Amino acid sequence: MALWDGRFSEKPTEALTEFSESISFDKRLYKHDIEGSKAHAEMLAEAEIIPRDSAEKIIKGLELVLSKIEENNFDYNAELEDIHMHIENALIAIVGDDGARLHTGRSRNDQIALDIRLYLREEILTVCEGIKEFQKALIGKAEEYKQTLLPGYTHLQRAQPVLFPHQLLAYTEMLERDIERLLDCRKRLNIMPLGSAALAGSTLPLKRNVTARLLNFDRISSNSMDAVADRDFLCELLSGFSIFAMHVSRISEDIILWCSEEFNYIELGDAFCTGSSIMPQKKNPDIAEISRGKTARIYGDLMSILTLLKGLPLTYNRDLQEDKEPVFDAVDNVKKILSVYPSMIASIMVKKENMLKAASDPALMATDLAEKLVELGVPFRIAHHRVGSLVKWCEKNKLKLDNITYEEMLSVIPEANEECLKLFNPEKSISKRNIYGATGYGEVDNQLNFWKKKLN
Amino acid sequence: MALWDGRFSEKPTEALTEFSESISFDKRLYKHDIEGSKAHAEMLAEAEIIPRDSAEKIIKGLELVLSKIEENNFDYNAELEDIHMHIENALIAIVGDDGARLHTGRSRNDQIALDIRLYLREEILTVCEGIKEFQKALIGKAEEYKQTLLPGYTHLQRAQPVLFPHQLLAYTEMLERDIERLLDCRKRLNIMPLGSAALAGSTLPLKRNVTARLLNFDRISSNSMDAVADRDFLCELLSGFSIFAMHVSRISEDIILWCSEEFNYIELGDAFCTGSSIMPQKKNPDIAEISRGKTARIYGDLMSILTLLKGLPLTYNRDLQEDKEPVFDAVDNVKKILSVYPSMIASIMVKKENMLKAASDPALMATDLAEKLVELGVPFRIAHHRVGSLVKWCEKNKLKLDNITYEEMLSVIPEANEECLKLFNPEKSISKRNIYGATGYGEVDNQLNFWKKKLN
Amino acid sequence: MALWDGRFSEKPTEALTEFSESISFDKRLYKHDIEGSKAHAEMLAEAEIIPRDSAEKIIKGLELVLSKIEENNFDYNAELEDIHMHIENALIAIVGDDGARLHTGRSRNDQIALDIRLYLREEILTVCEGIKEFQKALIGKAEEYKQTLLPGYTHLQRAQPVLFPHQLLAYTEMLERDIERLLDCRKRLNIMPLGSAALAGSTLPLKRNVTARLLNFDRISSNSMDAVADRDFLCELLSGFSIFAMHVSRISEDIILWCSEEFNYIELGDAFCTGSSIMPQKKNPDIAEISRGKTARIYGDLMSILTLLKGLPLTYNRDLQEDKEPVFDAVDNVKKILSVYPSMIASIMVKKENMLKAASDPALMATDLAEKLVELGVPFRIAHHRVGSLVKWCEKNKLKLDNITYEEMLSVIPEANEECLKLFNPEKSISKRNIYGATGYGEVDNQLNFWKKKLN
Amino acid sequence: MALWDGRFSEKPTEALTEFSESISFDKRLYKHDIEGSKAHAEMLAEAEIIPRDSAEKIIKGLELVLSKIEENNFDYNAELEDIHMHIENALIAIVGDDGARLHTGRSRNDQIALDIRLYLREEILTVCEGIKEFQKALIGKAEEYKQTLLPGYTHLQRAQPVLFPHQLLAYTEMLERDIERLLDCRKRLNIMPLGSAALAGSTLPLKRNVTARLLNFDRISSNSMDAVADRDFLCELLSGFSIFAMHVSRISEDIILWCSEEFNYIELGDAFCTGSSIMPQKKNPDIAEISRGKTARIYGDLMSILTLLKGLPLTYNRDLQEDKEPVFDAVDNVKKILSVYPSMIASIMVKKENMLKAASDPALMATDLAEKLVELGVPFRIAHHRVGSLVKWCEKNKLKLDNITYEEMLSVIPEANEECLKLFNPEKSISKRNIYGATGYGEVDNQLNFWKKKLN
Repeated sequence: MALWDGRFSEKPTEALTEFSESISFDKRLYKHDIEGSKAHAEMLAEAEIIPRDSAEKIIKGLELVLSKIEENNFDYNAELEDIHMHIENALIAIVGDDGARLHTGRSRNDQIALDIRLYLREEILTVCEGIKEFQKALIGKAEEYKQTLLPGYTHLQRAQPVLFPHQLLAYTEMLERDIERLLDCRKRLNIMPLGSAALAGSTLPLKRNVTARLLNFDRISSNSMDAVADRDFLCELLSGFSIFAMHVSRISEDIILWCSEEFNYIELGDAFCTGSSIMPQKKNPDIAEISRGKTARIYGDLMSILTLLKGLPLTYNRDLQEDKEPVFDAVDNVKKILSVYPSMIASIMVKKENMLKAASDPALMATDLAEKLVELGVPFRIAHHRVGSLVKWCEKNKLKLDNITYEEMLSVIPEANEECLKLFNPEKSISKRNIYGATGYGEVDNQLNFWKKKLN
Repeated sequence: MALWDGRFSEKPTEALTEFSESISFDKRLYKHDIEGSKAHAEMLAEAEIIPRDSAEKIIKGLELVLSKIEENNFDYNAELEDIHMHIENALIAIVGDDGARLHTGRSRNDQIALDIRLYLREEILTVCEGIKEFQKALIGKAEEYKQTLLPGYTHLQRAQPVLFPHQLLAYTEMLERDIERLLDCRKRLNIMPLGSAALAGSTLPLKRNVTARLLNFDRISSNSMDAVADRDFLCELLSGFSIFAMHVSRISEDIILWCSEEFNYIELGDAFCTGSSIMPQKKNPDIAEISRGKTARIYGDLMSILTLLKGLPLTYNRDLQEDKEPVFDAVDNVKKILSVYPSMIASIMVKKENMLKAASDPALMATDLAEKLVELGVPFRIAHHRVGSLVKWCEKNKLKLDNITYEEMLSVIPEANEECLKLFNPEKSISKRNIYGATGYGEVDNQLNFWKKKLN
Repeated sequence: MALWDGRFSEKPTEALTEFSESISFDKRLYKHDIEGSKAHAEMLAEAEIIPRDSAEKIIKGLELVLSKIEENNFDYNAELEDIHMHIENALIAIVGDDGARLHTGRSRNDQIALDIRLYLREEILTVCEGIKEFQKALIGKAEEYKQTLLPGYTHLQRAQPVLFPHQLLAYTEMLERDIERLLDCRKRLNIMPLGSAALAGSTLPLKRNVTARLLNFDRISSNSMDAVADRDFLCELLSGFSIFAMHVSRISEDIILWCSEEFNYIELGDAFCTGSSIMPQKKNPDIAEISRGKTARIYGDLMSILTLLKGLPLTYNRDLQEDKEPVFDAVDNVKKILSVYPSMIASIMVKKENMLKAASDPALMATDLAEKLVELGVPFRIAHHRVGSLVKWCEKNKLKLDNITYEEMLSVIPEANEECLKLFNPEKSISKRNIYGATGYGEVDNQLNFWKKKLN
Repeated sequence: MALWDGRFSEKPTEALTEFSESISFDKRLYKHDIEGSKAHAEMLAEAEIIPRDSAEKIIKGLELVLSKIEENNFDYNAELEDIHMHIENALIAIVGDDGARLHTGRSRNDQIALDIRLYLREEILTVCEGIKEFQKALIGKAEEYKQTLLPGYTHLQRAQPVLFPHQLLAYTEMLERDIERLLDCRKRLNIMPLGSAALAGSTLPLKRNVTARLLNFDRISSNSMDAVADRDFLCELLSGFSIFAMHVSRISEDIILWCSEEFNYIELGDAFCTGSSIMPQKKNPDIAEISRGKTARIYGDLMSILTLLKGLPLTYNRDLQEDKEPVFDAVDNVKKILSVYPSMIASIMVKKENMLKAASDPALMATDLAEKLVELGVPFRIAHHRVGSLVKWCEKNKLKLDNITYEEMLSVIPEANEECLKLFNPEKSISKRNIYGATGYGEVDNQLNFWKKKLN
């Protein structure tokens, strides 16, 4: 029998019970539900709304419930609907009428708002820790291949030589923004909603600041109707997760490309690949592929939450029950990615010679030539056009840019000097890119040092 | 040990195994995997690729595996990755080397394409049956309240009187399109991919038409690369499910409105509502709300699948493993809605007098007056403006349209005759709407008869 | 002054007019609005609701409006809100009071439902024609490189040799499903809604079948409330467009990969590439990239329409005005892709030798060896494991599969015979794949002939 | 002729030019492109990369280009592709070879990254100002109806009486989070990418901090590859806009409900409604409906951007060109909503008596009775059940809660005292809700004062 059914004469059928229950997925909130209830009971006693010894019995009872759940010694039952009812029910079974005092001044509307905030503020920290491990793996790999070059790509065409660590640092920057974004979200989420009750607040003299202090919240919510209707933090969190997953998909794309026989830039540890059920030669970068695939899942979860909330009138509507599974799915999948990605990065073996060979195509230094002409006083747009003509001339004559004579160069670029012939070396190209943020050796080294310090 | 690891020297860690396994969710395909494998073995024997008695042992072995799974007498193990490997492994354990012949000329790439098609073509029929039950419930309710009127709404403003059955017929039409759409999808899905092997077909003389016949497929796929890369049918199915869910969300919105104290048009059976943990008077239309919420889930699942496939090169990529959970989630939620919605519709008790009262506002017959003026020769646009002025005049004079004298009407609408005064009756309004598709009594009756015949 | 403002006392401000107008985008429907109005006027005369000569004046007047619009001799004005009001207004300005008879028995609710159906059923055919051109370009290119081999890929790893035409045929199949899907959608869309009026049908004796016949519709809608509320066809169409766009994104991904220096399989015509503003050597496959990007737009448009409709009560709600821009955006972008993609395909120059070299890696024939062992009686799973061990042995000994002696092979695969040494040739591999749908020469030739016939 | 075509031999056709141009939409960035170019030229002179007087000519030339554009005296031409090329081209036409020096050390890759950041950091402030106006309108309306009551709703069922200002304050809170979120996004966006060039930085001694200072950026980007590939800020911004739009959709839903004849709680100013083309009596809350519809558009834009970026390898890919239209669409639609919503709020006329009547249903005070029983020592869960039974008893006896005798109450609730009979008054109910965040008169007054101060 549900705790709210005083006024009902008909019991729901099994199909209906199955349809509307949430215990099958919200049971993961048991710890936070109990944590919240303990603080609530303590507050009720401090505010003298319930007797002190009732509160103490409640708190002990809740601790017993907690240990039963954690010892798998707890019965779930769809008729009891959700985790709140399960725990309150178990509490009353243990401590009797005192347990029936727990729900004073509280509604499931503000209770679930509390539980999900408690749960997520913890998960966000776990995820941020995981992202840091990811960054550490990237920086570690960058240290390992400090001098390694590869072509940087635009349009999946080789563009200019870059340091391999420079590319890994790009990933590190992306991940850093993810952490910032998640922490900004956490800041907006770390607000205590209890005391909003069903939607209008309570007529009892609840001490909301006490609850907030006990539960270590930054502040309490300012409007009871908003507090029970608000799921902004889920949208913001899943948006942050989506951007993180998008980053993972981009990094994965690079890794998958690099693992192909055509690029052949890296090899992943055997443990991070699987084979084929029919083609014995295959070594597939599955972890990167599945991670790229999980991006889709997390986008879908975000879209679910946004759609869910669209057009809902204030305040609480039962639609909100459907917010949990997408959020849990997103949390789980982000954590899954983080459980394997750092060690996959660590397992990368770089085939330096292949990268270097690809980066040595003199065409990749065409911009260096244009910029050299700028140094010689040629306006850039003209310099750029000159170099374009030289590239075309080389193609026509089946020559490479580093294979032509000074005279040949002059015939196309009258402003060139002899130094212009010596630019077609990728190390040289890199060593000239010395402004902040560029791929020059010194700059990249500075960045690596910055991150090593920051991540420790 | 995975069956493909002949060439590997390093075993995946537990975290990696957990990350890449799919058995936790693809085990639901066991029946279809075994069904497909039995047909495959039979075909291999018919094509004389494996000995007839090997095939027979395989088929018996698979049946044993099936009964073990159905009796919950089967061990799942993430190291065996997926349902295919579990079943093949169990088969080999039972029948030995003959079992090792099953995977001949087959890859997991075409095997999963087969399994998911077998699974979905069945689920689509189940869902269509469920939608028909939904339609039957609507038509049944329409019969019950054959003469009941309510206002039809545009912009959530009362617009014109309609028959309550007319609105239920609108829902029935929407659902009918859903069935058509799902069956069109099924048509494109009912194609046999086996024999495509990894991506290039097999060098063995497989008899694909035999397999197709045994499994009752419409035809076999025409291109092996397409067959292993194609997940169009998932997009199309989830799009069909999304449109269905959108319909449910619209119907739910109507029901939620009608249940409000303000509309007060219907009451749902107690079993279809729940109460509040704090407000004892509440009777909430939870089933409708949760169903509306599930729409969001299904949209999210569609978006996941579309995103998953975006930009994937041919042919199979491991990302595709992430296609299953969104599809299963959508199937499950559509079926859940269908498990409760028809009986909820059946439980509706209509408060006829409230509906009628709302439909009796003479302003709802304003269009009837405009159309009467058209009959009297007034161009519609002028008639419309005349009636608008009359409405305004009534507002100013705090009169209702059915409360004015002929002289008053003539003072604003010089073209009016006395009949114009008698239009402000909702039954009359309805009885005049006699063209096909309109809300007239006869027309609605025809439609009800059509549906009763069609649904039996 | 708006045509509906008989009852209003306050005029909207300019900001409000700007906010709620739709003429800036729905003006593209002018032709279909006029087409629909002409048929409506003709029907009104046939049904003797308006005088025959009024109808004739209306029809001539509408033709004059049409030519004015097409000659850019027409004023748009946000105060007149939408294309319907613009045209009716212009008509009345031309023909006077007879023009005021046009809107008889009609509402903008059913009028826009008509216009958008007229518009889309035409655009769908245009798109399908465009997709056929795309298919023709693929088949043409396949003919041109009938004997060309490349590796087929799974997990972006080389898997098995396939014919280049086989891959192009995979694309052709994908596109064929797109056409089928769009035509199924068109079938559901080609239904005449006029006569549904605001939502309840009309009290006038409209002859809906006449209008349907004049406008060449398959049938008329059966429920007036459904007809004005229904936007299913937009969801279904945008879902079909999304799947098409997804296909384009996958083909584009392949093309972008093939254009990279690493794959170096094809070159696109200069006209289909652009250069860099700073790197003179670049030749970027922009058309493929932008097309892949447009996929995102079209997915977004689908998500917009689905979200728009979620939870809307029956019948018409003004939200629906926001349905047009996403649909127009999707139509335009699909047509844009089709305006360039076929000629880009036609411009492909294949570097046969590079493809062949990549396909010649003996490891790609590993499956052939396993299947040969099956022919020799070895159960497949064992054969597969044997070949896996051989691959590993070769790696350890730095040998290639086609570079080992019979004895060496026997030492790992005791069941091998001498023929097993001769399998490592890609042409041979292809020529053995002779089942329907596989990449064998004959099979691919059959498919090409099928498509050539079908597309003419 | 494009500025990059030195190496090309074939010109694109018109269809291709149309396909790949972006000038038709990126021209809106002209002001920011010129602002960025002026700073870049100044920096090039300070760094002595170009002559000081070249820089001065460039800057003057750019100002001339700016005024030409703003005077509509500027030719757009799809062959010049984008706004960057248009402006550089016009500059060179004006100042000759000195203009050809402007693009020194810069690529369109970092240039567009700069322009879009300059554009958005401005638009974000505009939007935040607009949201503040929205908040002011809410607070103004709350002041106007300081003592007005209405039922607060959960599940669209009347739940408990609340102050009308309390509900408006809930909206104000929601909007405040929107502002915070947008400003957090702006913080991450306000970073100067110029100097990243194509992807690797420049070989020229650019002074990036100078450019940043001139353009008033918080800091400069740390990794050149990241800087040209990064579009995180678009995702984050559109996510922020989506949450804002979701809020608008929820507020709109409330307004649409309140405007219905059934709720009849408010009336909007005539200017904020439109009529029907056929039903003269209608007064539709179009602004709220269209705004709710625009939510769908903005969600779609977010989904577009996320999909666009999924799986893109580093660094710049031409797909990114498709990022602009969704972002512009979202910016425009958010601003459109803000252009009308505050004045619509201001136009609200509240029908206090209707609200009060609805809030006076004694059942809404059932929780007050339960909490009173708590004060009398009854454990809440038992109190709640008692009240539920009383509600049921009243229903059976067709009595209202405030219509029963003390004896009747005692017969169901033995713990009740006489005060329990006096709770069924909505003002009393509100006046007892005095904890922070609740709907009590004093609390709401405090909140109103807080916001009045904050918003001035």
